[in-house]
Amino acid sequence: MYCISISHKTTPVNIRELFSFSEQEQMEFERLVISDKDIFGCVVISTCNRSEIYFSGEKTAIDIVEKQLSEFKKVRKNEIRKYLNIYSNEGAMKHLFQVTSGLDSMVLGEDEILRQVKDGYYLALNNKCTNHELNIAFQGAMNSAKLVKTDTRLSNTPVSIGTLTANKVVDYLESVQGKTVLIVGITGQIGTIVAKNLLSKNCNILGTSRSHRHELILNDSNIKMIDYKDRYQYLEMAEVIISATTSPHYTFTYNEVSNILKSRSCPKLFIDLAVPCDIDKDISEINSIQIIDIDYFEKASKENNRIKLKELDKAQLILNKCVDDTLKNIYFQEFYPALDQIEQKIEEKGFGHILFQLKESLNSEQLMTLINSFEEIIREEDK
Amino acid sequence: MYCISISHKTTPVNIRELFSFSEQEQMEFERLVISDKDIFGCVVISTCNRSEIYFSGEKTAIDIVEKQLSEFKKVRKNEIRKYLNIYSNEGAMKHLFQVTSGLDSMVLGEDEILRQVKDGYYLALNNKCTNHELNIAFQGAMNSAKLVKTDTRLSNTPVSIGTLTANKVVDYLESVQGKTVLIVGITGQIGTIVAKNLLSKNCNILGTSRSHRHELILNDSNIKMIDYKDRYQYLEMAEVIISATTSPHYTFTYNEVSNILKSRSCPKLFIDLAVPCDIDKDISEINSIQIIDIDYFEKASKENNRIKLKELDKAQLILNKCVDDTLKNIYFQEFYPALDQIEQKIEEKGFGHILFQLKESLNSEQLMTLINSFEEIIREEDK
Repeated sequence: MYCISISHKTTPVNIRELFSFSEQEQMEFERLVISDKDIFGCVVISTCNRSEIYFSGEKTAIDIVEKQLSEFKKVRKNEIRKYLNIYSNEGAMKHLFQVTSGLDSMVLGEDEILRQVKDGYYLALNNKCTNHELNIAFQGAMNSAKLVKTDTRLSNTPVSIGTLTANKVVDYLESVQGKTVLIVGITGQIGTIVAKNLLSKNCNILGTSRSHRHELILNDSNIKMIDYKDRYQYLEMAEVIISATTSPHYTFTYNEVSNILKSRSCPKLFIDLAVPCDIDKDISEINSIQIIDIDYFEKASKENNRIKLKELDKAQLILNKCVDDTLKNIYFQEFYPALDQIEQKIEEKGFGHILFQLKESLNSEQLMTLINSFEEIIREEDK
Repeated sequence: MYCISISHKTTPVNIRELFSFSEQEQMEFERLVISDKDIFGCVVISTCNRSEIYFSGEKTAIDIVEKQLSEFKKVRKNEIRKYLNIYSNEGAMKHLFQVTSGLDSMVLGEDEILRQVKDGYYLALNNKCTNHELNIAFQGAMNSAKLVKTDTRLSNTPVSIGTLTANKVVDYLESVQGKTVLIVGITGQIGTIVAKNLLSKNCNILGTSRSHRHELILNDSNIKMIDYKDRYQYLEMAEVIISATTSPHYTFTYNEVSNILKSRSCPKLFIDLAVPCDIDKDISEINSIQIIDIDYFEKASKENNRIKLKELDKAQLILNKCVDDTLKNIYFQEFYPALDQIEQKIEEKGFGHILFQLKESLNSEQLMTLINSFEEIIREEDK
């Protein structure tokens, strides 16, 4: 198996665009590739971060596909060479497994890529452009991606402040059985990210923006925009209040908040994502009110980064094992037709004779490994 | 297999002497070693440059033999530890092969050691102290030493001035059908070495010594000592004249030599091994007389050293192959008793089932190697 890859790792977006494939183009290119007699199968994967062409064939296949790609995309070969990564045999297999498990992604361990690989593979399969080797490889890669997802914490260990905040908010809302979040500064960078994360978790959002220069880039019926000056009025309605403005003064002060909330004991969580602070720390003295600031999330992000690196090692071990198993399946499958001949020889000459011939062609280490395996088989059966 | 080695490489001669074995001691120690239930065989090799104990047994064997050696030779264990080299498994096998081929000797590629290893091995064999592993190992080592001797120029590429001179003299004597060499300065260092080499090639030697302080250390009926002052008288008798004194003036001058030799045309070879020169260069103008000086031999020595290093690489390749073959023979022999069980399983379940089990226990590279070997077997038989 071989792979020609153009990805975010080495190629700027303007070059990647030249090599993006629509579904129609994917199918067309795959058929073009396998029209060459030296090529037995082809799968094209195309996402905004990468275009990858996996193919199976003779040693000449790489040159052939490079030429086909250059003609198909009308880009000169010597202009694209510096952007291409080319992988062969075990290297190509490893790369496919890494990509499918999100280990080659911008956000380590993201699982969107698994769906994209799956779509690409089934498109090629239905396009009748895959062969046995590619089928075993892609099925192995998809299975190993699932293993990495279930057996490591790589895909569910957030490191972005936006995701960490949203997770914290959702936990809190569940504990107080609420649903509404007030975001002061929703049009800012952090405000927008947090809002987007919360929308995906079905929260109701009240958003304020101080300045009219910013347009709300999120358009969703679950966001209700309010005037910044009315923010205190809406305090009671929200269980979580997030403030993430760039303003140099407090957005919530003790006196104002306590006037509204001190007579009641509805629990509320204030989250301060601004630097400098937006929320008066004294508010935490009001009954049932809790404040979390950005330091808390930055610490969590660091800790999760540490976890993620550890999980990465674990994921690599899983992938190595999966790649090896898949290679074995391919070798085994390729050898299968010759099995009859070996069985016949064993019948004619005895297994001792075959083992003697093996001894001639293996080196001592290989022979030792084989003998150990035979001994293992004998022990297994004896159990 | 294991080896405990005390050799010229790491051990001074006074320590080596403590561990030298007479034949009687060799046999006695071998019997002592194998009296331990964890040890299955033992061979002792003892030469002036090394004592080596090769043995076969469980993992505990090294400690046991070290203790036995210390008691047998009455030397404290912690005193000898720093001199011992201990080799295990493949390392021990490689060491035995290196030693037997003369690659671990002071003079690289010398073949006296092969005879010594052979004597040691047969002594142990007749002493009934070898086992299967040691038998295969020593037979392999002796065969590989012969291969190194025949397939490389390691043992017949002299680098010492003495040997190179003697070879040149013998060639010359053959070409002029002569037999007599006059050595002026035979009791000096170089003179003695050259004389020794020539004696082993059955030359007649006339020897002079200038000073009476030196005693001739060679005592041989083929050496006739003459007075230095009579050297010109004996010129006619000798076909080759070697001069290797430390004297500051010529031992042979043009006028004297030409007076004696110029009327005749008997060819003679003068060899000047002295620094500064002993022989007047003008002598070469006399008809049929040739002079060679020490530069000639030093150049030849350098050239042969270069050849020897190249041959060493070649020898190592031969040894590696031989070691590997021997290891295979040992593994194969050890597995042989279990062969029936595997054959029975193949009969019961089919070879496909066994191959499937092998696939589980081998990694992809090992499986690939095995499959390649099977395919080789099929191709071989098809021829």
